[in-house]
Amino acid sequence: MRFFTRLLLSVLFCTCASAGAAPASEDGYDLWLRYRALPAAEAARLAPHARAIVAPATTSPMLDAAIGELQRGVGGWLGTAPARTDEVRAGAIVLAMPATRGATAAWFDGLGQEGYRVLRTRLEGQSVTVIAANTDRGLLYGSFAYLRGIATDGAQKAPDLRSTPRLPLRLLNHWDDLNRHVERGYAGASIWHWWNLPDILDQRYTDYARANASLGINGAVLNNVNAKPDILTAPFIAKAAALANVLRPYGIKVYLSVRWSTPLELKATATADPLDPAVAAWWRAKSDELYAAIPDFGGFLVKANSEGQPGPHDYHRSHAEGANMLARAVAPHGGIVMWRAFVYSEDKPTDRARQAFDQFTPLDGQFDKNVIVQVKNGPIDFQPREPVHPLFGAMPRTPLLMEFQITKEYLGFSTHLAYLGTMFEETLRTDLRPGIGAGGQAATVTRVLDGTLDHGQATGMAGVANIGTDRNWSGSHFDQANWYVFGRLAWNPEAGAEAIAREWAAQTFSRAPRVVDTVSAMMMASREAVVDYMTPLGLHHVMGTGHHHGPAPWVDNLARPDWNPVYYHRADKAGIGFDRTAHGKGGSGSAGQYAPALARLYEDPASTPENLLLWFHHLPWTYTTRSGRPLWDELVHRYDAGVTAVAAMQKQWDSLAPYIDPQRHADTAQRLKVQHREALWWRDASIAYFQSINGLPLPAGARAPAQSLDDYKALKFPYPPGNG
Amino acid sequence: MRFFTRLLLSVLFCTCASAGAAPASEDGYDLWLRYRALPAAEAARLAPHARAIVAPATTSPMLDAAIGELQRGVGGWLGTAPARTDEVRAGAIVLAMPATRGATAAWFDGLGQEGYRVLRTRLEGQSVTVIAANTDRGLLYGSFAYLRGIATDGAQKAPDLRSTPRLPLRLLNHWDDLNRHVERGYAGASIWHWWNLPDILDQRYTDYARANASLGINGAVLNNVNAKPDILTAPFIAKAAALANVLRPYGIKVYLSVRWSTPLELKATATADPLDPAVAAWWRAKSDELYAAIPDFGGFLVKANSEGQPGPHDYHRSHAEGANMLARAVAPHGGIVMWRAFVYSEDKPTDRARQAFDQFTPLDGQFDKNVIVQVKNGPIDFQPREPVHPLFGAMPRTPLLMEFQITKEYLGFSTHLAYLGTMFEETLRTDLRPGIGAGGQAATVTRVLDGTLDHGQATGMAGVANIGTDRNWSGSHFDQANWYVFGRLAWNPEAGAEAIAREWAAQTFSRAPRVVDTVSAMMMASREAVVDYMTPLGLHHVMGTGHHHGPAPWVDNLARPDWNPVYYHRADKAGIGFDRTAHGKGGSGSAGQYAPALARLYEDPASTPENLLLWFHHLPWTYTTRSGRPLWDELVHRYDAGVTAVAAMQKQWDSLAPYIDPQRHADTAQRLKVQHREALWWRDASIAYFQSINGLPLPAGARAPAQSLDDYKALKFPYPPGNG
Repeated sequence: MRFFTRLLLSVLFCTCASAGAAPASEDGYDLWLRYRALPAAEAARLAPHARAIVAPATTSPMLDAAIGELQRGVGGWLGTAPARTDEVRAGAIVLAMPATRGATAAWFDGLGQEGYRVLRTRLEGQSVTVIAANTDRGLLYGSFAYLRGIATDGAQKAPDLRSTPRLPLRLLNHWDDLNRHVERGYAGASIWHWWNLPDILDQRYTDYARANASLGINGAVLNNVNAKPDILTAPFIAKAAALANVLRPYGIKVYLSVRWSTPLELKATATADPLDPAVAAWWRAKSDELYAAIPDFGGFLVKANSEGQPGPHDYHRSHAEGANMLARAVAPHGGIVMWRAFVYSEDKPTDRARQAFDQFTPLDGQFDKNVIVQVKNGPIDFQPREPVHPLFGAMPRTPLLMEFQITKEYLGFSTHLAYLGTMFEETLRTDLRPGIGAGGQAATVTRVLDGTLDHGQATGMAGVANIGTDRNWSGSHFDQANWYVFGRLAWNPEAGAEAIAREWAAQTFSRAPRVVDTVSAMMMASREAVVDYMTPLGLHHVMGTGHHHGPAPWVDNLARPDWNPVYYHRADKAGIGFDRTAHGKGGSGSAGQYAPALARLYEDPASTPENLLLWFHHLPWTYTTRSGRPLWDELVHRYDAGVTAVAAMQKQWDSLAPYIDPQRHADTAQRLKVQHREALWWRDASIAYFQSINGLPLPAGARAPAQSLDDYKALKFPYPPGNG
Repeated sequence: MRFFTRLLLSVLFCTCASAGAAPASEDGYDLWLRYRALPAAEAARLAPHARAIVAPATTSPMLDAAIGELQRGVGGWLGTAPARTDEVRAGAIVLAMPATRGATAAWFDGLGQEGYRVLRTRLEGQSVTVIAANTDRGLLYGSFAYLRGIATDGAQKAPDLRSTPRLPLRLLNHWDDLNRHVERGYAGASIWHWWNLPDILDQRYTDYARANASLGINGAVLNNVNAKPDILTAPFIAKAAALANVLRPYGIKVYLSVRWSTPLELKATATADPLDPAVAAWWRAKSDELYAAIPDFGGFLVKANSEGQPGPHDYHRSHAEGANMLARAVAPHGGIVMWRAFVYSEDKPTDRARQAFDQFTPLDGQFDKNVIVQVKNGPIDFQPREPVHPLFGAMPRTPLLMEFQITKEYLGFSTHLAYLGTMFEETLRTDLRPGIGAGGQAATVTRVLDGTLDHGQATGMAGVANIGTDRNWSGSHFDQANWYVFGRLAWNPEAGAEAIAREWAAQTFSRAPRVVDTVSAMMMASREAVVDYMTPLGLHHVMGTGHHHGPAPWVDNLARPDWNPVYYHRADKAGIGFDRTAHGKGGSGSAGQYAPALARLYEDPASTPENLLLWFHHLPWTYTTRSGRPLWDELVHRYDAGVTAVAAMQKQWDSLAPYIDPQRHADTAQRLKVQHREALWWRDASIAYFQSINGLPLPAGARAPAQSLDDYKALKFPYPPGNG
């Protein structure tokens, strides 16, 4: 009886809610967890199968979180939340563990500690939906998977899902300063309100945790890798502990970035030398203090001897000596140390792209078991396109963690639409030993991370977060997709960027096929568009100084050679590109850092993928590219293609106006308009500059830049977000 | 027919929505404009009178804004928004101007350009609700007043409202930097996303405008008074123009803070001397440029020769010479200059409290007609309690604008609950010539602002905004009330802080009398509690250096004497307080700056209001206060009273748990808990310090401070919000 009343109400409510022509405005705060009232037909399909939630009587915060989310989701869709009960009844959602009465052992096969199974079956004679797992964490992930299933298919099919994560460490790295500035943040201030912590707990912390749990993200490094000593003082440990308490029920561990010289700067020791017993003792005591406050504390992330940060080199110690000292402090508590490989020499003028490899490969095998070396996806710095970092596959005795950047430091901030799923996937799928694994599995980067390629230890992925206080969390609605795809790929690196784009679009905007097809098509083409209008054919690091906004290929006046765009593109009258072939051929030798099969490809322009051509080769402007066009013509062609692709995205988005709520539609349309103008600017400024170098005429039919090179050089960008 | 369907749906929906025990969680984004579905009985009362909106056929953006808000409000309450039509029908809301067919001339009597009349009447034979005004601005304000009426009384009575604003300038001052930092901001980053402007217009700008329009606020100074030259460059003018376009339909003009030396710093002139023709010409041309972009631009706000800012004194010119030069640049366009009187000598060691008076009174009569001198409510700097600023009433030939601080720089940031309505009212109601006006109207500060006391020109009030990107806008839910009461008092300085607290509580939380009574009681007692536990009996400026958080009466090491707390409290073995009586009596003479009748009161401790005792007098610790207690005992008693009052607020708030949604209830409870702990800290640290000076035992029964004075002195507060 109550059920039919509820259904009637839902139907009436939905009729009412959908009376207007356009969907109601949304601000994006709900991310992909929107749970808006279902259309009547879908509600009628779901309601008979979501009448109650049956859960183990002995509860836990994580189980409560799972049930809370199921109630929120089903409650949002149907108008009334299913009640929790401990008796199986027809139409219930049953959260089952192996000890659950009537549970089938096969449900739990191979689920491990984090996996789940969701199926429609009979239990104690009743038709129910089972979410099965060996742990309450598995039930949490299974509950989110169940909800995702309904959100993407409208309860058309009986749920039938099974998944286990391939990587154990699925982490966000927040580059959030203690004053709430976010380095490379384009979504407002830090969501961590350090000043108000530990006493005042914003609802946003919980909603952040829910969003991450929905993806399987299980760790968060709370503060910037450019860390301050304060983070390890008692007041800040208490603040971090308060956050840990909010995140724990959602399966998320807290980690901290630490400054190498903390004990010295806090005047607790006279040195930061890792081999000084007093220093090691300080770190051990500090770790004990941390674990007393946060029993499941994850560990430390360290940026050392990198871009001015202190580190063990200051004491003539190696990265391994530095990392191991910290690792021994957290080892008794089960903690880990993530030691970043983003280093480039403080003094040596060798090719920056090769320096991390040069510094770290000699240390392979010297790191303690609980040290993981965290490596950026490419050897320079989060460019729109880079080749894979040569360290992957080159440290067989050292577990490596992937560091992706979710925030778009070099890809148009939160203004430009650029779906990073294709970029992440491109790296993860790179075959490090092409041809070698012909008989079996390719030697992909994913297999470095899951440990099957060499060292045997599965690690994971870290993503530099794009999250801030902006109401939609990520600055733009489409940038939510980059958080989403990072999490989904961290769970399963082979899930497929397009499939993930489709499920994100369905949850975030609408299940209408027209919407899913169009939005995912925009997303899938978007990153290549950015590469084309910013850094085609393997160009890189030609952005404006410091803020990294807009084109500045002309910059040649910075203190270090390898901070200057001219260092990277090396354009001259004769040609363009960075020769990274073997020393014997006059190159920097970076191509030779890859495994031989891959290095061979990169040594020869003819076999180098054209999208990395100028990364590895300095070529004459007349070099014939695969299209048959000379290099200069091809370059201009690519810039144009990038601009054209943005115009196409604008048209695609415009066509969706009837399907998307006005607020999110207008916001995105505004950003696409800016992106189009800035794509043109990138094209024009780049062409004007390179033409000033090579003196060549524009290819036939190509439009001249709208302004003079001096005009572009004169542009100033005060107060950029995310800087410094 | 449609009406009954709508009503039925509303009733069903409301039944459904209120099925749970507690109200649904809210995040505070909707402020006092919540428009949640009405209970059935109230909906049934409202619906017959809100069936349509009849509006003039010739529309305007402001009229559209009024209609949009009526549709949003009624639509939220009833489930369906009334349609706009141009034909009068029964049960319609009619927006009437004098030319409206059938309109009664008396409706418009005395409404001027901004006032409104709302009444239930008959028009063309139909029963309608009329919102009448002479202008579309009046209709906008009237529409918000209509909605406020329903929100506060649940549509019990037929509306019958009439109001005109007493002050023409009702302004927010945003101390927002161009990098989105907010000086003295405790609600996140600046809502102005300068980087994304002018192309990307956040929905938040519109919602900000709606909230202000609902109060009658009609101007916003967008940027910090510590201004950067960039704000007057072409890109930033375009950004400001884009904001002006969003705010204009809500009746809000844009103003800018400008840096005195802008043309010099932009290298457009060789000096910033106001008498240099090139400087004046630059400002004229810049004003022309501004008005070309923003035709209704309001004018400039200037902080000059104050706290390191440049100004006309740098060229040996007076404030009047500086202000007039700018005023002549904007005068042809109808613009104004607001010149801040918050100055204290760069070199002279006289009492800081007297310096603005000393500098400005000689200039009375020298300012151009379109210059308004903007004066803080008190002579020091936004303390929890100050006497009125002596400039009020002392510049009979110069219009003065009141500057209140809505953001709580010195009153516990956004953590402590402190309703500022009582503080604003205390200033506005201060009788500047007590006894003199016995036969007629008192010489209140309000009458300085409305021009009736002396200079004849009505000015207004500026409030330093407490608005940021926090989801609830103001950092805490209760701080929304300070934005609200500022706006309501700017419209009518005599509206009454308690009445305003009650209408805010009803709209923001619930119309339930229990809620309105309890919330308004908390609010009305809250500011006095803060005064008691921070700065009782006229103490002032004893807060921590720079960040102004927490007690630091011991600080004596800052560069300028008048930056040190010891300068202000002057405690020694014998006594405490700042002697501001006449020079002849050994005081600083500040008391004598007030009109004679008021000065006489302040010269004598016996007639000085006890809450300002130590502001004006240095008294022995044994001085007998009005309670009969010696001064030292009374001081301790006040600290205790402050702490006790916070404990009482906690209990009051706890009792409201059944009536308030869990999210807002929990957030406020957390803040009250912090406030209680920090009130204790204020008490204990202050007592420990003063005891170290006077060596006196604690009064009988008083609890000793929990920690040692050194413990309190050792506390550090890195990364405070709003600093610098």
